[in-house]
Amino acid sequence: MKKYDVVIVMGSESDYPVMKKSQKLLKKWGVSTNTQIISAHRTPQLLEKSVKVWEKLNVKVIIAGAGGSAHLPGMLASFSVLPVIGVPISTKNFNGLDSLLSIVQMPTGVPVATVAVGGAENAAILAAEIIALSNKKINAKLVNYKKQLKVKVKQMQIKLKKR
Amino acid sequence: MKKYDVVIVMGSESDYPVMKKSQKLLKKWGVSTNTQIISAHRTPQLLEKSVKVWEKLNVKVIIAGAGGSAHLPGMLASFSVLPVIGVPISTKNFNGLDSLLSIVQMPTGVPVATVAVGGAENAAILAAEIIALSNKKINAKLVNYKKQLKVKVKQMQIKLKKR
Amino acid sequence: MKKYDVVIVMGSESDYPVMKKSQKLLKKWGVSTNTQIISAHRTPQLLEKSVKVWEKLNVKVIIAGAGGSAHLPGMLASFSVLPVIGVPISTKNFNGLDSLLSIVQMPTGVPVATVAVGGAENAAILAAEIIALSNKKINAKLVNYKKQLKVKVKQMQIKLKKR
Amino acid sequence: MKKYDVVIVMGSESDYPVMKKSQKLLKKWGVSTNTQIISAHRTPQLLEKSVKVWEKLNVKVIIAGAGGSAHLPGMLASFSVLPVIGVPISTKNFNGLDSLLSIVQMPTGVPVATVAVGGAENAAILAAEIIALSNKKINAKLVNYKKQLKVKVKQMQIKLKKR
Amino acid sequence: MKKYDVVIVMGSESDYPVMKKSQKLLKKWGVSTNTQIISAHRTPQLLEKSVKVWEKLNVKVIIAGAGGSAHLPGMLASFSVLPVIGVPISTKNFNGLDSLLSIVQMPTGVPVATVAVGGAENAAILAAEIIALSNKKINAKLVNYKKQLKVKVKQMQIKLKKR
Amino acid sequence: MKKYDVVIVMGSESDYPVMKKSQKLLKKWGVSTNTQIISAHRTPQLLEKSVKVWEKLNVKVIIAGAGGSAHLPGMLASFSVLPVIGVPISTKNFNGLDSLLSIVQMPTGVPVATVAVGGAENAAILAAEIIALSNKKINAKLVNYKKQLKVKVKQMQIKLKKR
Amino acid sequence: MKKYDVVIVMGSESDYPVMKKSQKLLKKWGVSTNTQIISAHRTPQLLEKSVKVWEKLNVKVIIAGAGGSAHLPGMLASFSVLPVIGVPISTKNFNGLDSLLSIVQMPTGVPVATVAVGGAENAAILAAEIIALSNKKINAKLVNYKKQLKVKVKQMQIKLKKR
Amino acid sequence: MKKYDVVIVMGSESDYPVMKKSQKLLKKWGVSTNTQIISAHRTPQLLEKSVKVWEKLNVKVIIAGAGGSAHLPGMLASFSVLPVIGVPISTKNFNGLDSLLSIVQMPTGVPVATVAVGGAENAAILAAEIIALSNKKINAKLVNYKKQLKVKVKQMQIKLKKR
Repeated sequence: MKKYDVVIVMGSESDYPVMKKSQKLLKKWGVSTNTQIISAHRTPQLLEKSVKVWEKLNVKVIIAGAGGSAHLPGMLASFSVLPVIGVPISTKNFNGLDSLLSIVQMPTGVPVATVAVGGAENAAILAAEIIALSNKKINAKLVNYKKQLKVKVKQMQIKLKKR
Repeated sequence: MKKYDVVIVMGSESDYPVMKKSQKLLKKWGVSTNTQIISAHRTPQLLEKSVKVWEKLNVKVIIAGAGGSAHLPGMLASFSVLPVIGVPISTKNFNGLDSLLSIVQMPTGVPVATVAVGGAENAAILAAEIIALSNKKINAKLVNYKKQLKVKVKQMQIKLKKR
Repeated sequence: MKKYDVVIVMGSESDYPVMKKSQKLLKKWGVSTNTQIISAHRTPQLLEKSVKVWEKLNVKVIIAGAGGSAHLPGMLASFSVLPVIGVPISTKNFNGLDSLLSIVQMPTGVPVATVAVGGAENAAILAAEIIALSNKKINAKLVNYKKQLKVKVKQMQIKLKKR
Repeated sequence: MKKYDVVIVMGSESDYPVMKKSQKLLKKWGVSTNTQIISAHRTPQLLEKSVKVWEKLNVKVIIAGAGGSAHLPGMLASFSVLPVIGVPISTKNFNGLDSLLSIVQMPTGVPVATVAVGGAENAAILAAEIIALSNKKINAKLVNYKKQLKVKVKQMQIKLKKR
Repeated sequence: MKKYDVVIVMGSESDYPVMKKSQKLLKKWGVSTNTQIISAHRTPQLLEKSVKVWEKLNVKVIIAGAGGSAHLPGMLASFSVLPVIGVPISTKNFNGLDSLLSIVQMPTGVPVATVAVGGAENAAILAAEIIALSNKKINAKLVNYKKQLKVKVKQMQIKLKKR
Repeated sequence: MKKYDVVIVMGSESDYPVMKKSQKLLKKWGVSTNTQIISAHRTPQLLEKSVKVWEKLNVKVIIAGAGGSAHLPGMLASFSVLPVIGVPISTKNFNGLDSLLSIVQMPTGVPVATVAVGGAENAAILAAEIIALSNKKINAKLVNYKKQLKVKVKQMQIKLKKR
Repeated sequence: MKKYDVVIVMGSESDYPVMKKSQKLLKKWGVSTNTQIISAHRTPQLLEKSVKVWEKLNVKVIIAGAGGSAHLPGMLASFSVLPVIGVPISTKNFNGLDSLLSIVQMPTGVPVATVAVGGAENAAILAAEIIALSNKKINAKLVNYKKQLKVKVKQMQIKLKKR
Repeated sequence: MKKYDVVIVMGSESDYPVMKKSQKLLKKWGVSTNTQIISAHRTPQLLEKSVKVWEKLNVKVIIAGAGGSAHLPGMLASFSVLPVIGVPISTKNFNGLDSLLSIVQMPTGVPVATVAVGGAENAAILAAEIIALSNKKINAKLVNYKKQLKVKVKQMQIKLKKR
């Protein structure tokens, strides 16, 4: 079975437009990923099975996106001691406030590392930061990425002066 | 194995002061209950197993109380076609708004019948209303309970006039 | 008078696009329904009368959708010992937070089984779960529906891999 | 039957510590009042009957206090064309935000004149303002009350200077 | 100077699309109205002056619409013992929650009768209910209006059955 | 008449325990202050008069504390071109969220410089920062105050190490 | 190096459509401004350096716009004793409530003068009010601006009458 | 200089009663920690310096607790590519909702791994999960901790049965 460092999970195809940002950024940096649809509510039997497979494959970080009664990240964390990063997906009526509170307010014993509503890119960066602790190449990518952020701000500054 | 009509579940002993109100009211009406501590986050393996046992025992209603990232009612609903009643438990920082949104905002396909924050008594009444559909004795208890509610209001009215 | 198992009530025609989802799903499963417009605020005299008719007709579940100061589900529950399922309808200014709190925060003695904002399909499923307790055919439909949910997730997973 | 200009209604004895402020202030100004406990949820049959009695007695204003799923003011307004003033009562979990939204967000056609959470005194003043439109004595009381408010502010100012 | 029973005030032309609903409904019922733009923040000197003119003209009810830091209804109430009805106008960022809290949370002594966000029609009905206490014609209009509300619900019911 | 640079205004004696922190800090730094009770709702006639007096006295900054429908800072700003700093006072039911939104959400043309709920000390610092622009002594006090903040953090750090 | 009285800072080009309103209004009144893009999160090293440059240039007021985890205004305030005005920028999911709370809830010692969400014009007016304390020309502009606000309200009033 | 794997930072001594839970749990598991007080607002110059020291010392995870305008975790993340875990500290007026939104809503490029309000223990567990990726001993501690969680739930279950 093919190995990968980060698994990106979501409950539904409809979360993919957000979650693919995690996938894209990690791929760009050469972090191996696998993207899966597992629903805490519709395929609950898959939760434990999947976590066990990932642990055998030496997956390092789980990124899970979910909206509304967003149980997916917390349930994956329940079955594993791998770090789980939760991405609250925006919702029609509460704009992701429900997702955020469902994901972040975990009880003592089972943390989920929560990022901003819709923050799939930041989930990827956080995963990379974790992997970089034992991977100098990824660490260099992150250091370079931070530099690029600065460059972009300076370019905006130059552009602004011309207005 | 002893049979019971309603199972009352909570994630922690600390939820018992609220959830015992469900137990007490159902017992008073002669509805058989069983009260259990199952944590979605700390004993996730028990979720499916317990639901299967309950289905075999012909349990009719599941009442589940949970606070914060309140995944218990929704996860039990994921494993079952029994009606699940969710009781949001009040929390220290968000007074149960987090619990309420986590429980009520379930995705299409997996409903949880949510009652008010701390509404364990109403969960019991709702369970009794469901059981009463095929149990005339319980139905009579409910009709009588409604009458008692009216009597109490009238007693308050009399008491008020005396002030 | 024709009998039906579930009555679907709403306060206004404008709630029908949401509430017809309850109707459609129950019809599909062969649960007999009757859909009515009764406004707690504009036709309050109909509340008690309607509930009495439904009780005579052996209606089993009341589904009521309402928005804003959403009194309809709670008032129907006040007049009946039938289980009442409340569907908070989204509102222009508060996106249904007002509807949700008005419906779910019922006082002790009069529960409303509340589902997600706009959750008319889940209201239907919950009604079916209640009916299924004494109806094996409906129970089988629900078991099958749960299976279909799993199948759909797997299809999404396959589709995702092809991207 | 004794006549009165303002009826003060609440759903439970527990609302009396707040609602008696309406009663006290109106009595002080010589506005006749009658205080009653009617629960929208526990004595729904009393709603219409009571409103009809009040209309026969030429009641001028209805003040109704309620908390949580606060249906009482709105339901009284549904049965009457008398002005209804709603007092949201503070609640344990949502501090009256649920009560406020349940009372104020009424649909077109059935207004409730809502005051602040716990604002029973202001409900009384509003009732007096309505009565004062055709009652010069009450109008003079209100004008004098406004003067007293100013005097009190000035007294506080004097006291503050001495600190 | 021409007399009128209800003055409708707003802080800006941009509130007119909402507030004209008050004007239209009152006109339809034969209640004389006068519509004015007075800004608590931009023309504060007009507040007291206008209130004094209205009191001389025997205005009976003030309807004031405002959004955001919605001070207009409360400041008019500060200068008068006339009943003031506040209409919270929806806002870009907080959808009128800011307007609602600014208007309804008045301190003891100075009430504002608050209606729903955007509830200009209900403000008109409330004004008419106050005027109807001493005007049988307006009272009849209101009674008839309530009947029409019922008729409309029944028409919706008939229409629904044909679907 | 005695001159002062900063006027500290509040609507009620009950706001003094918070607002005296502004007074105390400014006095400590040698900024002349005057503390007054003026209620936007109970003494509205004082608003314009007071502002005119302050402008004649060359007051530089107005600090105004208010809670609930917190109109005082905004109304003072309406009558003046002096910078007005608003301090939202915490409230019983909404913990100052109502105060904050009422104060900060001012319409274009009439700003209020809002600080944190209960932030009377920060209001004083902000006033001092404004005065320091043309007063080197106050500027030096502020620079020194910032240094003291650092010192205190370091002392806490030392204390922590000893635990 | 060219001098300017007000520096307008924002974290990203995307904030410019809002923040240019500050720039435009100040320019119109002859207040010299400089607009810069500095990101608290992407160019944190620039924070202290920039503040030191501004202090040398005798900048009088810093206006900073930021959205979400809006750290820019607070961090600039951390490095300076100049008055910092914070403009919360509206956000996709929380409409600027996150920005508002991040900016306004500063700890004791480091105030940010917060204006309404999107209130860049009011930030400019507040800056002008501060500068006007030692600049009669700007003071006259502000007095005139306030008059124009009144004129506009009167024009709206005239226009309304013609409808 | 002594090395440590996790640095625990907070802005004030007053955060220590919460944050020491991180310290205690990590110590128990043999993870080396260092606890420091650094205030983003009062000692902003320490932010970059400290981060550089930690990077040299091969610190693996930064845990930062902050309340209100909670800038500390985000600013540390701005200066580093180490994973930063943010602990929102509860606040007097908003119970930590301000802290949560300030910490979690970080812009793209600079993530903070946010845990529940007051969730210092979960921050420690998350840090341990990250360290465990390259440390089998810590991994074993975590696996054992998860087992203990299960045992505790079972003990509660046994205790409950005895009631």
